[in-house]
Parts: sequence; structure tokens; C-alpha cells
Amino acid sequence: MKIETVAIIGLGLLGGSIGLAIAQRAPGIVTTGYDRDEAVRAAARERGLVGAVCESAAEAVAKADLVILCVPVGAMEAAARAIAEHLPQRAIISDVGSSKKSVIEALSAALPGRTIIPAHPVAGTEQSGPQAGFATLFAGRWCILTPPADADPAALEALSDFWTKLGARVELMDAEHHDLVLAVTSHIPHLIAFTIVGTASDLEDVTRSEVIKYSAGGFRDFTRIAASDPVMWRDVFLNNKGAVLEMLGRFTEDLTALQRAIRSGDGETLHELFSRTRAIRREVIDQGQDDEKPDFGREH
Amino acid sequence: MKIETVAIIGLGLLGGSIGLAIAQRAPGIVTTGYDRDEAVRAAARERGLVGAVCESAAEAVAKADLVILCVPVGAMEAAARAIAEHLPQRAIISDVGSSKKSVIEALSAALPGRTIIPAHPVAGTEQSGPQAGFATLFAGRWCILTPPADADPAALEALSDFWTKLGARVELMDAEHHDLVLAVTSHIPHLIAFTIVGTASDLEDVTRSEVIKYSAGGFRDFTRIAASDPVMWRDVFLNNKGAVLEMLGRFTEDLTALQRAIRSGDGETLHELFSRTRAIRREVIDQGQDDEKPDFGREH
Repeated sequence: MKIETVAIIGLGLLGGSIGLAIAQRAPGIVTTGYDRDEAVRAAARERGLVGAVCESAAEAVAKADLVILCVPVGAMEAAARAIAEHLPQRAIISDVGSSKKSVIEALSAALPGRTIIPAHPVAGTEQSGPQAGFATLFAGRWCILTPPADADPAALEALSDFWTKLGARVELMDAEHHDLVLAVTSHIPHLIAFTIVGTASDLEDVTRSEVIKYSAGGFRDFTRIAASDPVMWRDVFLNNKGAVLEMLGRFTEDLTALQRAIRSGDGETLHELFSRTRAIRREVIDQGQDDEKPDFGREH
Repeated sequence: MKIETVAIIGLGLLGGSIGLAIAQRAPGIVTTGYDRDEAVRAAARERGLVGAVCESAAEAVAKADLVILCVPVGAMEAAARAIAEHLPQRAIISDVGSSKKSVIEALSAALPGRTIIPAHPVAGTEQSGPQAGFATLFAGRWCILTPPADADPAALEALSDFWTKLGARVELMDAEHHDLVLAVTSHIPHLIAFTIVGTASDLEDVTRSEVIKYSAGGFRDFTRIAASDPVMWRDVFLNNKGAVLEMLGRFTEDLTALQRAIRSGDGETLHELFSRTRAIRREVIDQGQDDEKPDFGREH
């Protein structure tokens, strides 16, 4: 099974980056693309995100060996239905969504009998849209595939090779476990960041201008994540509800314990936790998941 | 009132950076320093953090026009008592602590009748110790002074000029208001980051190795802040208890509302918040409080 033509549905940060990464790292692959927003299609043409920007999803997928749905997870089913009648029989259907159980359900319902292998490249920035993508987004990042139990091994291998070509490291995972892991490493951090930025901008006794002015105390870090695409993230929380609520429960429990420690003046509990968390940062850096530069290398 | 000799007590990230900034931007000022940790004093000598590293706090402050206490806020009173008998009458006593009401109380108790003008430069990194400081830490950052109502205007002007020389922008604030503002922009963000990093490293169903591996989904941002100095932060929470608990209450309320929105599938509430928070990021960047580069300019 060879992937020679890739159709990308949705030409935002992820879709655009895949197109650019193919052009740079696997230029033998033909790319087509579609976005339901006309302005995005025009921008995609101008930036050359894919070889051919089509005027319909049907046209974009007509000759595809691999179709990658790069739309918010809540829009997967509709995007899949729009291409159902036009897919070549051989095509592998994949995606880049941040929740995987819901995506498998959506795609299975819309495309019965098709080869479906969901994927989640753990990569991105806080920006979105057709101007945001770049060819090296996936370099050295993990891409998690969550194949159904009966997935075609040849298709799985082809998809795995494809992501490796784009520079990613591939890992297989059960969809349910994926959703739990990502709830901790991505969804809850985003939820917390959205919340605190919202809280801070909505106080009576501290002005918004003060919040911005003194944000270098830590708050500004949270504003980056809280600038992420609103529709994408709304859909993540609605489609990974179970795992998000479970992990949120753990977080709240731990926060309540710290609140009690502060109220009762229990410095030992605080110090013990703060010492443990320092070690985690070290591991993140040692395992190449973040830069060592202090303060994210911000200029001083 | 002229500041010609500055004594720095505590030669970690902040103390060291002040010494280096003086050497670079106000080389006419003589600097002395002391740290109660012998290893820190040795490192400070080697890096040349101050002109003279002394063997006692008493010796360091003996000729000072300005003494800056750069110790955890819980150690302020003891540090002040140690120098009380050795201060020149003219000396201004200041600090760099992250909570100000508690510092004013501590310094007033230890140094009755002295000229005390607390300060808080809103600058730092997640690193600490005598190796962490650098001369440009304060460039373009805000330094908040919280002078008591009866502060000597000449001393206030001299301290304000001093921080301006180091590159900072100076703002005056009431200590109580400072503590509330910083609870939002610094203390709560740190508390949340410490908590989520602790939660994530302590789960049964997701391994620590998975947490590290997929931390690029957002979690890694939080590990930076959660790597900050444990003693410093323990003291901040214990010494700004009232404002921290108040702001934590607001945050928890907002988080509970989002939790309910997720549980009930209320996408509109989520989308509305996520759209608002995006605008705050824009303001943080427009007002020069963070870099515009996507993903903090991390290499891809």
C-alpha cells in the first residue's frame, strides 16, 4: 500500500502544516486540499499549502490514497459524510483530532466499511488559520495513532510511514487511553488556562489594565494557551467529556488540599509539593519535550 | 539623597541580578553583598555578583545608602533583625519580595524608626540561586514600590531613580492593592501550575512517562512555572494568604461553572469564554509584556 496522493480537508494550522511538510519532506506525494471557507481556500492557494486547492471536498478526495480530516472534532462526522460517496475504495481515512473515541465513532458512523485509522499529532501553536502553518511543526513531535482492533496492518504501516516522513515519532495507543492521557497533558491545562485568564479579566477590584501590566509574574504564560482556537477547544471538551471531568475532579481535589494548607499555614505540605514539581520540569527537558532556556528563552 | 553604596542581602536570582545590573548600568555605585549560605557566597565571588562579598550581613550593610533584602518573604524579619544594629542612620531599607503587606509589617517590627520602602520588581525566571542572575533581568519590566504613607519623599525618589537606572519602569501602589493584583497575575497562576503538575505526576491510570512524553499538548508550559523556587513560593502563599484565598475562590467558582458547562454540553458558554480570552493575549503582546512569537518561539 503506497501513499502517493493525500487529500487534506480543512486548511488551518494543522492541515496547512501537513501540506507544507509534505512539500518539504516528501515532495513526491501529490496533495489536494479543501476548506469550506472560501477565504481560507484563497489564502491556502496564495501560500501554496497544497498542490491543488479544490472547490469541493468531493473533488479533493477523488484520487486520494489518504484523506486527512483537519477539522474541529465536532465537525468530523459532517466532513466525513461530505466525502463518503466520492472516496476511492483504497483510501485510508485519518484525522488530527485531539479526542479519539468520539472521532472513531463519528467516522465509523459516516463511513461504514472504510479503512479508518485516527491519528493525533501532539503538536501545535496558539495560532490558527491558513497563515499559521509551517513545514516543521511535526519535527521530533509524537504522533499517536489509535487504530481499531481490526485495522488493516498494511494501511497502519503506510500511515505510520507517512507521519515518520513528516518528521514525527509514531506511537500506537488505545483510543480510550489516549483520551485519558491527553486530558491530563493537554485538555485540563487548556481548561485551567482559559479559566484563570477569564477570571483575571473579570474582577472588580483589579483592573484589566493592571492584569496585563503585571502579567510577567506568571499570568502571561497562561494567556498563550488561552489564545488557542475557540471552536477547536469547545469541541475537544464536548467530545472528551468523560476523561476531562475525571481529570478535573483530581485536579480540584488537589487544589482544595493546597487551599487548606495555605489557610492553616501548613508550609511543609506546600514545600513538599513544590519540590516534587521541580523534578518534573527537569524530566520534560531531559526528554526533549521542551527547551532548557530559562523563561522560555524570552528576551530580557 | 544619593545612593552611592548598595548592600544586597541574599545572592540568588534577584540579588545576583541586581548586582550585575548595577555593574552594567550604574558602575559608579559600590556594591557589597552577603548570603547566609557559604556555597552561595563562594559562587557569588566567582561570578562577581557584587563588588565585595562579605562574611556577615553586618559588615555588608555597614556603609550602605541602600540595603536590599533579597530573601524569601518569610525570612525578611530575621534578615532585618540581623542588620538592625549595623545600619547607617541614612540607609534606605528595601526588598524584592512578592508580597508587600507582610514585608512592611516584618520590616517595621524589626527596624523601628528606619526609612523603609518596600519594592517588588515583577521579573524573574524559573531558575534560582547564584548562577541564575543576569544583568538585564529588569530591563523594561515593572518595579512596584509600596511606600508607607509617611515615607520620606527624597528617599522614595532616590529608590525610584535607582530602579529606573537598572532598566525598570517604576509604579507606586498601596501594599494591600499590590497583594491583590499580584495574587491574580502571579500567585494564583503559580499555585495552579504547581497543582496540575503535581496531579499529573501522581495518577494511577496515566504513567509519569506518558505525561512527560505528551507534554507538548500544553502541560509543558506549566512545568516551567512549577519549577520555581520551593521556599520562595511557600513563603509567598503563607504571607499573602488573604488575597490568595480570595482570588482562589473566584477561580474555583469560574472553573466550577465551566465544569457544569462541559457536563451539560453547553458549547456556547465555552465558546464565549474561549473567544474572550484570546483578546487578552493580544493585549499582553501589544503592551510589550510578552513576545509575539508563536509557541513562545520554541524551535520546531
